[in-house]
Amino acid sequence: MPYGAPFLSVSSLRPDPVKHALSVTREQDFSAWYQAVITEADLAEESGVRGCMVIRPWGYGIWERIQKLLDERIKATGHENCYFPLFIPLSYFEKEAEHVDGFAKEMAVVTHHRLIQKDGKLVPDPDAKLEEPLVVRPTSETVIGAAFSRWVQSWRDLPVLINQWANVVRWEMRTRMFLRTTEFLWQEGHTAHASVDEALEETMKMLEVYRSFAEECVAMPVIAGEKPENERFPGAVATYSIEAMMQDGKALQAGTSHFLGTTFSAAQNIKFQNAEGQQELAQTTSWGMSTRMIGGLIMVHGDDDGLRVPPRVAPYQIVVVPMLRDNDEDAAIVDYCTDLVSQLNALDLFREPVRALLDKRPAKAATKRWGWVKKGAPIVIEVGGRDVAGGNVSVIRRDRLYREDGKLDSQIVAKADFVAAATSMLADIQQALFADAKGRLDSNIDSSISSLDALKAYFDASAKPGWALVQWSKPTGDALDKVVQWLKGEKLTLRNIPSDAAAADGACIFTGDTAVERVLVGRSY
Amino acid sequence: MPYGAPFLSVSSLRPDPVKHALSVTREQDFSAWYQAVITEADLAEESGVRGCMVIRPWGYGIWERIQKLLDERIKATGHENCYFPLFIPLSYFEKEAEHVDGFAKEMAVVTHHRLIQKDGKLVPDPDAKLEEPLVVRPTSETVIGAAFSRWVQSWRDLPVLINQWANVVRWEMRTRMFLRTTEFLWQEGHTAHASVDEALEETMKMLEVYRSFAEECVAMPVIAGEKPENERFPGAVATYSIEAMMQDGKALQAGTSHFLGTTFSAAQNIKFQNAEGQQELAQTTSWGMSTRMIGGLIMVHGDDDGLRVPPRVAPYQIVVVPMLRDNDEDAAIVDYCTDLVSQLNALDLFREPVRALLDKRPAKAATKRWGWVKKGAPIVIEVGGRDVAGGNVSVIRRDRLYREDGKLDSQIVAKADFVAAATSMLADIQQALFADAKGRLDSNIDSSISSLDALKAYFDASAKPGWALVQWSKPTGDALDKVVQWLKGEKLTLRNIPSDAAAADGACIFTGDTAVERVLVGRSY
Repeated sequence: MPYGAPFLSVSSLRPDPVKHALSVTREQDFSAWYQAVITEADLAEESGVRGCMVIRPWGYGIWERIQKLLDERIKATGHENCYFPLFIPLSYFEKEAEHVDGFAKEMAVVTHHRLIQKDGKLVPDPDAKLEEPLVVRPTSETVIGAAFSRWVQSWRDLPVLINQWANVVRWEMRTRMFLRTTEFLWQEGHTAHASVDEALEETMKMLEVYRSFAEECVAMPVIAGEKPENERFPGAVATYSIEAMMQDGKALQAGTSHFLGTTFSAAQNIKFQNAEGQQELAQTTSWGMSTRMIGGLIMVHGDDDGLRVPPRVAPYQIVVVPMLRDNDEDAAIVDYCTDLVSQLNALDLFREPVRALLDKRPAKAATKRWGWVKKGAPIVIEVGGRDVAGGNVSVIRRDRLYREDGKLDSQIVAKADFVAAATSMLADIQQALFADAKGRLDSNIDSSISSLDALKAYFDASAKPGWALVQWSKPTGDALDKVVQWLKGEKLTLRNIPSDAAAADGACIFTGDTAVERVLVGRSY
Repeated sequence: MPYGAPFLSVSSLRPDPVKHALSVTREQDFSAWYQAVITEADLAEESGVRGCMVIRPWGYGIWERIQKLLDERIKATGHENCYFPLFIPLSYFEKEAEHVDGFAKEMAVVTHHRLIQKDGKLVPDPDAKLEEPLVVRPTSETVIGAAFSRWVQSWRDLPVLINQWANVVRWEMRTRMFLRTTEFLWQEGHTAHASVDEALEETMKMLEVYRSFAEECVAMPVIAGEKPENERFPGAVATYSIEAMMQDGKALQAGTSHFLGTTFSAAQNIKFQNAEGQQELAQTTSWGMSTRMIGGLIMVHGDDDGLRVPPRVAPYQIVVVPMLRDNDEDAAIVDYCTDLVSQLNALDLFREPVRALLDKRPAKAATKRWGWVKKGAPIVIEVGGRDVAGGNVSVIRRDRLYREDGKLDSQIVAKADFVAAATSMLADIQQALFADAKGRLDSNIDSSISSLDALKAYFDASAKPGWALVQWSKPTGDALDKVVQWLKGEKLTLRNIPSDAAAADGACIFTGDTAVERVLVGRSY
């Protein structure tokens, strides 16, 4: 699998003449590399609380960018933000059996509301036991459904289109930063509609919002499609996802949109009087995207020197590092850089001001440069005394870090020319990161596999295979279980049925029956 | 106590010829009026979960505005946002005895991580009991202190300046929407410094950020000052607050900034090597502002027709209501309004685009108008066929709803003139709401009271007294307890020692000793 840049071994400008900025490469150990990026880019760290992480400023800054840009798209499609309780009474879950089966095994349960001292230790006060335990929300269909049942009386009250930015908790046994944590941050949209058609339209509209957001803002190419029956959200009639390919070939489900039919409206009594005066159950949807997206961003765009953040979601797009020497020239360099940063911050890109930072921290310029390379700031500018004298700046593009000879590609450019070209360079980096990932995705989906032996061989042949797009007869129930079990034996999963896949024209790879559609198969996170 | 507008009884344009838009006035029952505003302005509602509310779109929209504007000021003063775990292990609390004494009595405790079915009901699984219970954060000093102890090694690592936007839980016995809820939303800043002076400077800087934010953005005049010893945050060396006066004369603590000294750095081992090579404990601070601010906004700016939202924090500043009649004229009216809204949204005010909304919902124009009056949109525009024909709009300013004769003050203005004047009108409304509240605050603080009898008489004389600013000797320990107990008997509390109060020049009203400063006394929320 191509990593974009070739694996290089020597550069006089790198922190070590043999190695990249990280101590482990993707090739050596993808999983250790992922963790190294998180640590070296200051994205997050273990918190000391089981399965929960601390999201550090650079990681949280990326999340704030994701929130801002996704929130704009959620609002532009007519949704309003609300906030619902963190705690959900057990009885709310008891109303929807299928939903609780899907979540009951992994929820945090609050049983007491006070602590007391006992033998010098703090313990839950037995006198403060809750009559009804409260669940820390793993998702909010039940508590939001209860609100919808109060809000919706007539067809005139529909549609209800709301969204919530919140923390949720799922008691995961094996956790991994950003990908699977006990607590995570997300947005969850919840809507109620008068008809199946309208609810399905909403489900697909938000799937498209996720697709375009992932591709346009995170520069992450994805495949949008319906999840097979066995991968549906507990209680959903249909679940749709966007699936992104990581650089190790595995799939990451990066956003889901669910058509819930009347599952939750029946459980929570979301009824309305239709135009004909009859009572009907509302059709509901829900859809979510989470901090998992940051894990995907790392595994799609990171390289052996750290993270590469697409400009649209970078907390800072251009970082200016003054090369100070504790001498008389320093003041002039800082002035020159301050002027540069203020010129850059006055520019607009993607209908927002450019985000440039002057890094004045008391540290060596080379340390700061490599720090920003590891963090993945799209453009790093260095300015020394000679640059000031010549009216220049030294420009490093994070997406093209090295020259063909393996040396760091630091270009000296006239300051005015850099300012004039800065926004188009940022737009170019955004585009280049997408094109790189898109090329990788497209060239690593094999659509030619038509037998289980060939499928097995495809995934056995490489440590980092891509995905297979295979024809199937869309089996259900026990027949589907059999397929899923066989795949499980090969450590494979069904990802989704791509919306834009070609029509089926052959036999089902699993059952031999006539195929009705094509489904993506891959390893996954 | 003046309410700004006189109590009016007749207007042909009001929904009822005798009453205001709300069914209860501030004068009749302030507490019921507060609840009526929350309901009628669609700010929030009971959730069905004990002590937790659902924040509805208009209420959450105000919170989003507060977040945005306060976040800008927090970042402009050098702080970065992070995210720390919701759950705090019990052992973290055990390290800081004073802190836990302040909070242990009101915390939600997670004891299990799984549910099982038993006799047809869901119950916590006895096999999934946590070895160490987890507390749902009531505030994050302990868990953030643990992170700081990892981050801080040398004086070069200081200061650490971070902030978190999060939900917190305190198990309150008596709850009241926005003012005291089991779960609430807030930001909590946490910083670590090398010296007492620097930490104190930070504490005061953030107090000033809160003061200027409250006054400039929420149009809420406040008194900033130090809280007396008995009102300190558990574990703090000094606590500062901003106090706002509600229209019933009570005080609302609207933001606090704490100098924590080494209380938490000692408990969490936040140590650094100073420039001389010696180990020192860091000096820490914390500071927070919450959704309580919305409760304050209601009680400072609301009137008998609902809420009045200052333009800077209004989700929509101008709402355009087309007066449609289901006839041929409608399309022209909608076009006219669409053009108006796009012209308004192209304007800038307070360095942001103006937020105008075209309300196209299928409801009667009068219903929509009164809905926006109750929500408190700063300007409501109505456009009918006659307005279109004349090139006009009908303008209602929410801060001046009625003419002197008691009729709704709806001014017909040329559309172009309104667009040209819109931003200055919004700025004027922002200023008028502040001036109104500032006049009320200033005229309702009595600085002349010098005996306990006079103090008692002042608060007994009126159902809605203001505050008293009295001289005192700043007693501590038992002597302070005695003062606090006496005040409690009168349902009074010490608010703060205003930073800008005149120097003391007499005797302490409580002890008769020589006074050293002046302290605010009042009823409070």
